[in-house]
Amino acid sequence: MKVAGVPYRSVWREADRVAIIDQTRLPFEFHTLRLSDCDEIAHSIRSMQVRGAPLIGATAAFGIALAMSADASDVNLQRAAELLGDTRPTAVNLRWAINRMTRLLQVAVPAARTDVAWTEAGKIADEDIALNLSIGRHGLAVMRSIADKKGKVNVLTHCNAGWLATGAWGTALAPVYAAHAQGIALHVWVDETRPRNQGARLTAWELAQAGVPHTLIADNAAGHLMQRGEVDLCLVGSDRCTAQGDVCNKIGTYQKALAAADNGVSFYVALPLSTIDWTLHDGLAGIPIETRAAEELLVMEGVDDSGETRRLRGTMQGTPALNPAFDVTPARLVTGLLCEHGLYRADAAELQALRAVAARAPARV
Amino acid sequence: MKVAGVPYRSVWREADRVAIIDQTRLPFEFHTLRLSDCDEIAHSIRSMQVRGAPLIGATAAFGIALAMSADASDVNLQRAAELLGDTRPTAVNLRWAINRMTRLLQVAVPAARTDVAWTEAGKIADEDIALNLSIGRHGLAVMRSIADKKGKVNVLTHCNAGWLATGAWGTALAPVYAAHAQGIALHVWVDETRPRNQGARLTAWELAQAGVPHTLIADNAAGHLMQRGEVDLCLVGSDRCTAQGDVCNKIGTYQKALAAADNGVSFYVALPLSTIDWTLHDGLAGIPIETRAAEELLVMEGVDDSGETRRLRGTMQGTPALNPAFDVTPARLVTGLLCEHGLYRADAAELQALRAVAARAPARV
Repeated sequence: MKVAGVPYRSVWREADRVAIIDQTRLPFEFHTLRLSDCDEIAHSIRSMQVRGAPLIGATAAFGIALAMSADASDVNLQRAAELLGDTRPTAVNLRWAINRMTRLLQVAVPAARTDVAWTEAGKIADEDIALNLSIGRHGLAVMRSIADKKGKVNVLTHCNAGWLATGAWGTALAPVYAAHAQGIALHVWVDETRPRNQGARLTAWELAQAGVPHTLIADNAAGHLMQRGEVDLCLVGSDRCTAQGDVCNKIGTYQKALAAADNGVSFYVALPLSTIDWTLHDGLAGIPIETRAAEELLVMEGVDDSGETRRLRGTMQGTPALNPAFDVTPARLVTGLLCEHGLYRADAAELQALRAVAARAPARV
Repeated sequence: MKVAGVPYRSVWREADRVAIIDQTRLPFEFHTLRLSDCDEIAHSIRSMQVRGAPLIGATAAFGIALAMSADASDVNLQRAAELLGDTRPTAVNLRWAINRMTRLLQVAVPAARTDVAWTEAGKIADEDIALNLSIGRHGLAVMRSIADKKGKVNVLTHCNAGWLATGAWGTALAPVYAAHAQGIALHVWVDETRPRNQGARLTAWELAQAGVPHTLIADNAAGHLMQRGEVDLCLVGSDRCTAQGDVCNKIGTYQKALAAADNGVSFYVALPLSTIDWTLHDGLAGIPIETRAAEELLVMEGVDDSGETRRLRGTMQGTPALNPAFDVTPARLVTGLLCEHGLYRADAAELQALRAVAARAPARV
């Protein structure tokens, strides 16, 4: 995506460092950071300077590459994998990327590991972008069929599963960008996404960069808009999907899925196959839900009249708060899973078939 | 309720003026205002210095009294009724209170109107408090039956339908205060209630004043907590309920009701009979939904380290936003309506029976 005319990815290599966009400073400031070691990468994931399941995975892979550059020993490889693996508990792409790197590096001699690691991390980042383009192409068919009937497509999205959550294009927003590029008339309802406001801060910002029409709403307003026929489909991302199609995503996703089901609105989850955790079936029982600091709910961040970023307390002192960061949407509420191989139903048999397809032939990307 | 040891109502007469708590300054500052004329009353309702359906009704009645004090003519009575009636479109108690005042004053001679108006406004305010105590008593039975089974009651509430939304005690929170007074162990999950944060700012504050255990959550988190069995019942208020039991309330209420239904959690709406609009059946088709300023979503208010109240922009400049203030929960999602006459099912036949009961014998309050 272009920012002020300059094309960017969300994570990239710059000589012996890894560059990221500091997403905690968006939309008030577009600021890139150069990270020099694995500890800095771990910090960037933990502090959510980078966030979004696919982007976390790619960034962690680069973290392993930085670790190998510093010390390509078995001990350091294990240390890096553990350090990065502990940064966020819910997103499975993180573990997927670390495992992919580790498996490859374990069989390489230490002298070769630095090169192998940088190459593989670059491949993960490149593949992510290609997968998202595939997701976009498959989603485009859904968008087009609605546009053919209604003239215009009203999408509702929650959190940020866009360009900023991935290497580029996004998962949930890939079909939006694909349809927009084709000249399909569309409009995106952007959930604010409390408490971290990724919708208000990141999705609204990136849709504005791309010139995609959008309107910010409170998370509370989505059901009301669906009741009024103002939403044609929901498109969200995922941090972990189980083998039976239960979808873990940003807190509040479940409530949107309930509203969609109650109003006959299609609810699609867009995700690369690396987001599926084949070891789990029951998402409610099996997926660990990260609890984040209460402060995210109690303290708000914004800019004052002079453009300076400031923080304010929004409650009386001492208000207790609980801040679960994700929830699980049962498969029965999911209309379909949009992945790089196409559109699939969220059920165990269909996903087993998808797994077999993927094992035989990687998606043409 | 006592604030720093001093007992308060939410609206009261002070000589020839009307006193209110400026709720736009809570929880950062407890500040009372004296209003001298009907225009100031209208402003206080429009700007949400007073809010909450029952409190708006009582305050508007006092506004009519102030208008009669200034000029007891028919023309001024009509002007006052129109001015106040136009302040907020959704809450029906507003129109109910204005109509009650107007009907009485129209048959009084102008010389008597000032006294009649002050007396009737005082009666509306007193009755509101008594009705809420009745709602609390009826709700106590529900709370006790859960406590008997589980030892402790976890309530979830949305927005503020408490002491601050009424003359005193509240509607949705009346059962909570009644149960707390009886020593029943309970805890309240307080929805933040974006975009105006009435949960975070008002409900958390008043529960803290009363010493009721509570925890603030993002609106997005309610469904997740219900999935985990952390909510025993939902208690919300209403701004307008139709003759078939469709419930209009703060935006986001519908999503909570969906989550409650999906998880077998009881969803109760507490309201005085004056909140029922007998002229409407289909709430989705018939109830006008107020759209408020986008700024409520884009600009956040809080206190800085020095305790000063400040406002910050939370999005990039130019983000478009839509801010509907209420939604409609269909009767099928409502477990029961708690009113001053007891607990009733949300359906047309049951509500007709309730109406007949109320016509024969006002609730013992």
